[in-house]
Amino acid sequence: MRTSHNFSGGPGALPEVVIEQASEALRQAPGSDLGLLGISHRSDWFREVLDEAERNTRRLLGLSEDYAVLFLQGGGSLQFSMVPMLLLRGSATAADYVHGGYWSGKAVPEARLEGRVRLAWDGSRCGFSRLPSDDELKLAPDAAYLHYVSNETVEGLQFQRVLGREQVLRVCDMSSDFMSRPVALERYAIVYAHAQKNLGPSGVTLVIGRKALLAREPAPMPSMLSYRHHLQQRSIFNTPPVFAIYVTLLVTRWLLEDIGGLSRMDALNRQKAEALYRLIDDSEGFYRGRAELGSRSLMNVVFGLAAPELEQAFLAEALRAGLHGLPGHRSIGGIRASLYNAVSLESVHRLCEVMRDFRLRNRG
Amino acid sequence: MRTSHNFSGGPGALPEVVIEQASEALRQAPGSDLGLLGISHRSDWFREVLDEAERNTRRLLGLSEDYAVLFLQGGGSLQFSMVPMLLLRGSATAADYVHGGYWSGKAVPEARLEGRVRLAWDGSRCGFSRLPSDDELKLAPDAAYLHYVSNETVEGLQFQRVLGREQVLRVCDMSSDFMSRPVALERYAIVYAHAQKNLGPSGVTLVIGRKALLAREPAPMPSMLSYRHHLQQRSIFNTPPVFAIYVTLLVTRWLLEDIGGLSRMDALNRQKAEALYRLIDDSEGFYRGRAELGSRSLMNVVFGLAAPELEQAFLAEALRAGLHGLPGHRSIGGIRASLYNAVSLESVHRLCEVMRDFRLRNRG
Repeated sequence: MRTSHNFSGGPGALPEVVIEQASEALRQAPGSDLGLLGISHRSDWFREVLDEAERNTRRLLGLSEDYAVLFLQGGGSLQFSMVPMLLLRGSATAADYVHGGYWSGKAVPEARLEGRVRLAWDGSRCGFSRLPSDDELKLAPDAAYLHYVSNETVEGLQFQRVLGREQVLRVCDMSSDFMSRPVALERYAIVYAHAQKNLGPSGVTLVIGRKALLAREPAPMPSMLSYRHHLQQRSIFNTPPVFAIYVTLLVTRWLLEDIGGLSRMDALNRQKAEALYRLIDDSEGFYRGRAELGSRSLMNVVFGLAAPELEQAFLAEALRAGLHGLPGHRSIGGIRASLYNAVSLESVHRLCEVMRDFRLRNRG
Repeated sequence: MRTSHNFSGGPGALPEVVIEQASEALRQAPGSDLGLLGISHRSDWFREVLDEAERNTRRLLGLSEDYAVLFLQGGGSLQFSMVPMLLLRGSATAADYVHGGYWSGKAVPEARLEGRVRLAWDGSRCGFSRLPSDDELKLAPDAAYLHYVSNETVEGLQFQRVLGREQVLRVCDMSSDFMSRPVALERYAIVYAHAQKNLGPSGVTLVIGRKALLAREPAPMPSMLSYRHHLQQRSIFNTPPVFAIYVTLLVTRWLLEDIGGLSRMDALNRQKAEALYRLIDDSEGFYRGRAELGSRSLMNVVFGLAAPELEQAFLAEALRAGLHGLPGHRSIGGIRASLYNAVSLESVHRLCEVMRDFRLRNRG
């Protein structure tokens, strides 16, 4: 098993101890006579799984009871639609969207099906090489809401601050850096994150939002698209993705008990990213980071080689060394090392070694 | 592990060999250096998982290339909305819905959000004790489509024939008896089934439909709700539920290789149901089947005791004997033995033994 050297952009590496526990639970779930997949979602056993996953999430984020924690299906992509169905449909004003990269760009056409959208920033003009400063953001004081993506997985860009004005609802897609660092979650109206970067397997999406807002739903909605419905049913409107939720619970336990909370996680993540960026910056231009300095992501280190014809050779060598998932996103190519929570510092050091060695033998 | 005595209504029992394989794959996926949860959904490895799952499904059902096989999220409940979004929204005519039980009843209000619905049968009038004959069904020759649920999990009712006229599109929710028996699938326009009864874990839903129909989408739709979109993207529009799809693949292999196809599965399922119904019918009224004879389900045997005050004692005794999941659905109570594909004949015999023994000691 090489999860320890998995730099995949997602689904990403998960902690080995979690994988062990999940593997065992398939045979027999702790505290039950049954295997995990055969347990009813209406059982007390699974209710406690959901309750603990919610408690752990609240504890990790310091979340008050004004906020709901929902476990839904459909990924970030379904949230791209559910958010504007709630907040933009029938709204007199437009919503502000920050188009910072590939994924925030995917959110825009889905929102436009529901109402008017203004781009507060159009990063395509600079090839998504950086994120905007506060001065560059065109924010309307009466926007229906502000939507942005905290970390752009494809281009390796990450905001290190909270955007927007306090009087406008903030909605943030935190799919790729959720639980990687502390976050002032109560400054947001709705935050969502699919699990398969830092939190668990694909198939479950966390939605955290102000209860009063999620419940306000103006007109009848299809039940599965209704936050209000999921809120009332406490994430068990229909059969939820039991396995994905269980593994997510195990990851929240790991964050609390093995790591010691999100500040500790953040410190570890910074150490990993700094090691890799330092190697890139010290390579005399052999390796080139894609993002401008102030916009660099701690989660996804996207880079190329000054000699692009060497990139395939590098990727092949890395794979032989047991380093998986390094090819860049299919839309832009290059190299991407994703350093999600479960990627160890040891794995990053191994990657640095391989990069250093490759450079020594190829710098011409 | 007691999956062999799991009579849960769903998520249900899965074959032990599948559980073993899934448990191993979490540590290391066959043919990969990575654990299943760390593998990219864009990898060749996962493409082959999806392709084989589709091939196996086609082979089990004898499906032509005119039909698409999609692996989606959201369960049957999201299909309750996606079907009328495609076929009823903007339609001049109403859709015919058969209200045969709890689950088909859930589909009706979701469809009504999209257009006009007529009830071709209202089973509430007979307390869902039986399903309609052809004469009793009120079918419009110009209906937008006919929707029904082939097996009502809660009440234990199952159609043993294909409903409707050839000129009206048939849509069928086969969630709880899909792949339990051969089915003339090409007589249907769209069939859908969540996995967690006979096919796999919760979190993935199979949709099988005529390609030309799924692609016809009149107006732009949210991407995640668009069959056309999922068809074009071959079930990888966004990150799919990798684990649930992989386990579903393992179950299709088990059906093909261990069981020997759907006719063999059907014969086994009949043997199981007959054993249990025979015991009920021979109990001199001590046990009472809920459904009328011609409407009995082979998947969910729903029954009660002539002396309802004994039901809790029976359920407690069954649980002590290692028989799980027997309490009836929370909406109607009583007892329900779900005999999905992975429930063995041996488990059914064990249940019969416990029932026989309980009767001998309690018949007064």
